[in-house]
Amino acid sequence: MRTLDERGCGRQTDILPRSFVWDPIMAHSAALSPLAPKSYPDLPDIEGVSFSTAAAGIRYKGRTDVMLALLAKGTQVAGVFTKSKCPSAPVDWCRARLKGGKARALVVNSGNANAFTGKTGAKSTKLTAEISAKATGAPMGEIFLASTGVIGEPLDATKFDGVLAKLVKDAKPHGMLDASKAIMTTDTFPKVATAKALIDGVEVTINGMAKGAGMIAPDMATMLSFIFTDAPIAADALQAMLSKGVGPSFNSITVDSDTSTSDTLMIFATGAAAQRGAPKIKLASDKRLSDFKKALDGILLDLAHQVVRDGEGCRKFVEITVEGAANAKAAKRIALSIANSPLVKTAVAGEDANWGRIVAAVGKAGEKADRDGLAIWFGDIRVAHKGLRDPSYDEANTSAYMKGEKIDIRVDVGVGGKGRATVWTCDLTKEYIAINGDYRS
Amino acid sequence: MRTLDERGCGRQTDILPRSFVWDPIMAHSAALSPLAPKSYPDLPDIEGVSFSTAAAGIRYKGRTDVMLALLAKGTQVAGVFTKSKCPSAPVDWCRARLKGGKARALVVNSGNANAFTGKTGAKSTKLTAEISAKATGAPMGEIFLASTGVIGEPLDATKFDGVLAKLVKDAKPHGMLDASKAIMTTDTFPKVATAKALIDGVEVTINGMAKGAGMIAPDMATMLSFIFTDAPIAADALQAMLSKGVGPSFNSITVDSDTSTSDTLMIFATGAAAQRGAPKIKLASDKRLSDFKKALDGILLDLAHQVVRDGEGCRKFVEITVEGAANAKAAKRIALSIANSPLVKTAVAGEDANWGRIVAAVGKAGEKADRDGLAIWFGDIRVAHKGLRDPSYDEANTSAYMKGEKIDIRVDVGVGGKGRATVWTCDLTKEYIAINGDYRS
Repeated sequence: MRTLDERGCGRQTDILPRSFVWDPIMAHSAALSPLAPKSYPDLPDIEGVSFSTAAAGIRYKGRTDVMLALLAKGTQVAGVFTKSKCPSAPVDWCRARLKGGKARALVVNSGNANAFTGKTGAKSTKLTAEISAKATGAPMGEIFLASTGVIGEPLDATKFDGVLAKLVKDAKPHGMLDASKAIMTTDTFPKVATAKALIDGVEVTINGMAKGAGMIAPDMATMLSFIFTDAPIAADALQAMLSKGVGPSFNSITVDSDTSTSDTLMIFATGAAAQRGAPKIKLASDKRLSDFKKALDGILLDLAHQVVRDGEGCRKFVEITVEGAANAKAAKRIALSIANSPLVKTAVAGEDANWGRIVAAVGKAGEKADRDGLAIWFGDIRVAHKGLRDPSYDEANTSAYMKGEKIDIRVDVGVGGKGRATVWTCDLTKEYIAINGDYRS
Repeated sequence: MRTLDERGCGRQTDILPRSFVWDPIMAHSAALSPLAPKSYPDLPDIEGVSFSTAAAGIRYKGRTDVMLALLAKGTQVAGVFTKSKCPSAPVDWCRARLKGGKARALVVNSGNANAFTGKTGAKSTKLTAEISAKATGAPMGEIFLASTGVIGEPLDATKFDGVLAKLVKDAKPHGMLDASKAIMTTDTFPKVATAKALIDGVEVTINGMAKGAGMIAPDMATMLSFIFTDAPIAADALQAMLSKGVGPSFNSITVDSDTSTSDTLMIFATGAAAQRGAPKIKLASDKRLSDFKKALDGILLDLAHQVVRDGEGCRKFVEITVEGAANAKAAKRIALSIANSPLVKTAVAGEDANWGRIVAAVGKAGEKADRDGLAIWFGDIRVAHKGLRDPSYDEANTSAYMKGEKIDIRVDVGVGGKGRATVWTCDLTKEYIAINGDYRS
């Protein structure tokens, strides 16, 4: 199981010309991220999935804080969770239920993470599942749960009792955007993506949603993402694709290097497309999945990027590519060392092409690097070459580049290897400190 | 070789009642750290060591930027350096010279780190050593060098040519405080410490100096520390004591998790105390060194703490103790995970006893922890117990504690082991972002 320990954000590949109207439901983070997508895709309905939301008053007032996704009988499920040694109670719950491979309902709340709540946390998830099973008529083992919000506060599961019956009654296929809003915490915008794919000539749909803004902010955040599709794919195959797909997407992003207790990514496949002739697929190695895999990877990357684009206090979206490393793992470790360096991130915030800090971050990663063979680019501008400042370095030119909203950093570590990796992060600003340091003081 | 990758700050164990007068020599960081020591010790002279400083105009104007420590013939030397894979040219130089075990001169400059300067960097250190050897009459192999400041700018070593002869002429035993000022970069105060120890009944003196404020800030910083003693101890024994002593001191502090290309810690022992009857000691295991070791460890910790107390933008000095871990290594890894968490550090800045973020940082460390057995204290206040909020938790009481300048965080990870470690850090404030993100924009 990989860790979902970092995020990226929002290259919208499926933006429709529908303009995005945002309601500032979060009093403490009213300002929309400057990196937010300009519009949102219209999410097609997915046969076998319906959504509804409710305001259960778990923590917030005057906004929705619970979402239900009702899933057709036989829906297959797979998931990837945080690697934290102190996972939340819902993460424990989902991991244990995943073995069955089947899902009938997903219940997610914001406002309380039900993390670090001891044995009462497990009791709370069990009670939530019982309430959900009763309201939906589904078996307990096919109920999946996620919670995001405050850590360490007992979650009063009886609050679900008051809303679940109505949630089941209200559920409709077109409710996904509303659902994505109900799970927000410090997010300044909801995160959704959609794609079509062909399986053996039959079109299937994949919709995804995510939330997350700080890597983890136990008082307010965590990363959750849910993917839905009508493709008839077995749980094991879904799991293999998800476990692989998370590597270059959600596991290649970082806002602040802090891993959450609650990070959850799940995919649900209703299989409804089988009625339209899509073949039932059991193995991830099935060649007929190639287009689906590509579409799924696109959704994962899109959502991961959106999380970075909503990084707390962010003003710049940073893509870091490391090449010429001994191997891909070394390249990724170096890239994340750069992406997590507070000094690199503050330099980007200050629009300073400070490649000296990049050298230092390469050096501390612990992977092989040839100091005297290193080259660094900001965009297309090579600032360092063969271990020292590029002879043609032009400060004015580079400064102009640093004023942009998207900053591309490329590093050749000079070892001559084929190792290559790309990760995404945002800059580190005073606003990050304000969001995370000021709100209680 | 361990890494000197982090810093701490200033429990002054030897503060004399001499008040400290500070001249704001650094235009860009005029404000003295609120955690600066209130006074400085009077540093006793050490026989066989003399200091001088000069303004060579390497980068700064109107301040000293070069220091020389002249060492008596036969002075023994040991050192510990950065683990960065991209070390500076002076680090390469010192590592290679350390094998001889002897030192006659130490030349340190601020303003330019001579790091990531390719082959010209090595040429520059060689030229500096040649100039120093000529001026002092010492062999090249006994000249030690350190540089701190901008990364990636060629260091014009000819500038040393103009000042070295006068530095040799001016050198006097009582110049150590001035020397500690000449090596400052973003530091807001010079860092010195002193102690006496008995070796077989004969009193010896140990003086130390350090600089460092951001973990590394290639445009302005890095960690350097130099220790001087008149004790007659052989290089190998010094090396063993230093390598061991750095663990619970300089390697147990962090300002921002960024390792420098230039971190350097060296100890020089002139052996002059032998004339007063101190025995010549060859092995670190010699029982007659017990008092000396204790004094040396005290100096290392004192200087390490001073570095944290001058952490860029710091307002609070944070001591983090992890206990009940599987072993000491696991305890330290968990403690550093807490100390390096931006969310924990911003919470401390916001005077918020946010133990949920501590749970998350424990969870992401990757070491064994029992979520449901965890306990957390702020000072003497237990805020979490057996995996959930302490039943007797009092918000007002805890908030009052968080307003203090020194914050003690203690975590029992509940595994029931004997592993224990303490590390030190500072809070993460908007001022850190301003220092590192604003100065060029």
